[in-house]
Amino acid sequence: MYTLFFAPGTCSLASHIALEESGLPFTAQRVDFAKNEQRSPAFLQLNPKGRVPALRTPDGILTETLAILAFIAQTAPERQLAPLDPPFAFAQMQAFNTFLAATVHVAHAHGRRGSRWADAPASLADMKAKVPHTMGENFALIEHGMLQGPWVLGERYSVADPYLFTMAGWLESDGVEIARFPKVHDHFRRMHERPAVQRALATEQASATAALMPKTMNTV
Amino acid sequence: MYTLFFAPGTCSLASHIALEESGLPFTAQRVDFAKNEQRSPAFLQLNPKGRVPALRTPDGILTETLAILAFIAQTAPERQLAPLDPPFAFAQMQAFNTFLAATVHVAHAHGRRGSRWADAPASLADMKAKVPHTMGENFALIEHGMLQGPWVLGERYSVADPYLFTMAGWLESDGVEIARFPKVHDHFRRMHERPAVQRALATEQASATAALMPKTMNTV
Repeated sequence: MYTLFFAPGTCSLASHIALEESGLPFTAQRVDFAKNEQRSPAFLQLNPKGRVPALRTPDGILTETLAILAFIAQTAPERQLAPLDPPFAFAQMQAFNTFLAATVHVAHAHGRRGSRWADAPASLADMKAKVPHTMGENFALIEHGMLQGPWVLGERYSVADPYLFTMAGWLESDGVEIARFPKVHDHFRRMHERPAVQRALATEQASATAALMPKTMNTV
Repeated sequence: MYTLFFAPGTCSLASHIALEESGLPFTAQRVDFAKNEQRSPAFLQLNPKGRVPALRTPDGILTETLAILAFIAQTAPERQLAPLDPPFAFAQMQAFNTFLAATVHVAHAHGRRGSRWADAPASLADMKAKVPHTMGENFALIEHGMLQGPWVLGERYSVADPYLFTMAGWLESDGVEIARFPKVHDHFRRMHERPAVQRALATEQASATAALMPKTMNTV
């Protein structure tokens, strides 16, 4: 049994969808950012970085979306959620996911978590103002070359798809119209129709409205 | 035959060292940042992101340090440069490398490439001023938990080691004394003694002084 620690609206959605696709048995446990629960001693013991996602596995805790996604794909190989062989194909997926983790997610984070990298209110406002530009540039790279279509890696669905879906879902609040990127937009719509995506979104929405209910209500 | 496109002083050193450890046949081709060669049409055709490292393989171009490192380890399995199995062990290495790519490298980049995320000179100065703090915090996490010692993953050397070595090499210019982190410092010194590290550093230094020589001088 696996336990995913997630927060609605964050990149943990990608791991949540991948778990739903994998058929692995899991529960989803909400970490309440409104109560700063990600910085609580109990959670920091799980993940000293104080971030989601974190995945409790029979072997220990795993963190970082990119690592969790590949782990899920390798642990449920019958679902074919990644090209595990040859190494070049796997590496191409990992390169795409690294771009999302280290460039796209970072660009997005400057809109709301600029205090990670600067202190003055004017600096944070300056960072926030640039987010539409950086997110637009990043998604232009994705649209014109990186997203092969219909899925990220072409005809084959992989864990790169829920990761892209998660980031594309941030575009509107980042001031970027998704319609500027027809392939990304089409990908977003097709992802949204997948039963696994619907299940993950329903669980996350229910957890947000049930935040004051007993913990057991937050699990699937 | 592989070709690594690198620039001295950047994260491409990690891939360079991993190639030296792997025994794979490769040449190292310097990309001259002083001439903005990473934004030249020829290089953008190789890597539209305009960054190093990029690795030319018989199957195509690979980018992103994290993906290249795992690819090298999987392509030269006899050198045991990564725990390729079970998936949990591999994922732990990937989680460590993701932290370096998406958190540590990003913190460092705010010192010299803040214009990626903001425009006003005051914002860039503000970002730069915070680098010692963020790099110090990140290396405290590495020192107290993530770096198992003597190598990142414990007794077993892996491609996480050259990646950590590369980032630790930035601490001094980021205003952080490496001696604050005894395990990291010890790791850095032991890495520096490895013949593969010496070869990679010698090639990169020679390429920097031979920048005006014909291209063929820049290869090993």
